[in-house]
Amino acid sequence: MEASSQPEFCSLFHHAVELVGRRWTGAVLNAILEGNHRYRAIRGAIPGLSDTMLAQRLRELEAEGLLERRVLDTSPVRVEYHLTQKGQALDRPLQALADWAEEWLAGDPERRVTARSGT
Amino acid sequence: MEASSQPEFCSLFHHAVELVGRRWTGAVLNAILEGNHRYRAIRGAIPGLSDTMLAQRLRELEAEGLLERRVLDTSPVRVEYHLTQKGQALDRPLQALADWAEEWLAGDPERRVTARSGT
Repeated sequence: MEASSQPEFCSLFHHAVELVGRRWTGAVLNAILEGNHRYRAIRGAIPGLSDTMLAQRLRELEAEGLLERRVLDTSPVRVEYHLTQKGQALDRPLQALADWAEEWLAGDPERRVTARSGT
Repeated sequence: MEASSQPEFCSLFHHAVELVGRRWTGAVLNAILEGNHRYRAIRGAIPGLSDTMLAQRLRELEAEGLLERRVLDTSPVRVEYHLTQKGQALDRPLQALADWAEEWLAGDPERRVTARSGT
């Protein structure tokens, strides 16, 4: 990695990696990147994710400026979650991580057994 | 993201993102990618990281097959930590995340104040 070692950079990197890696956050971002914008659709895309946890993660992502909660003026009112530019920009790192997982974890039989939402 | 939505893929991605995002893990991988191979050098590269936590993270990374602990036949014995191919392959996703952090978090004054190891 060519990144500089300055403390400020370190703290930014540190924040980014732990933000994305927070329990279920990667999965939630991924589900929205895949085109799920409504609460139920997002939850449906992530087996094992509870309502409490999803609500909490959505609030955190909104607070981080990654996610925008849109209340549509329909009847009944409809709520949608959309990634901001900042959130959409996470597509590249998440895709790189997905590629890594596919290349390096897919053949690992232990991972298949212990993985939480595996079949 | 173009990743498939199959449960097995989801579980692999889920594992990868939470592995990398585990507290301090990204920072430890980064420090080793930057060329720090000895325990003290790694610890020195990460302000705020305790001995207990570093030892635990190194063990986990070894168990995941990302890190190799080499005992060199010198006097006194010298121990070095090197990334395996699987670990080195994380360079791309981590770099992509670092780029994202630099682009999207660097200008955020709140982040500078709240960031743990910021100056």
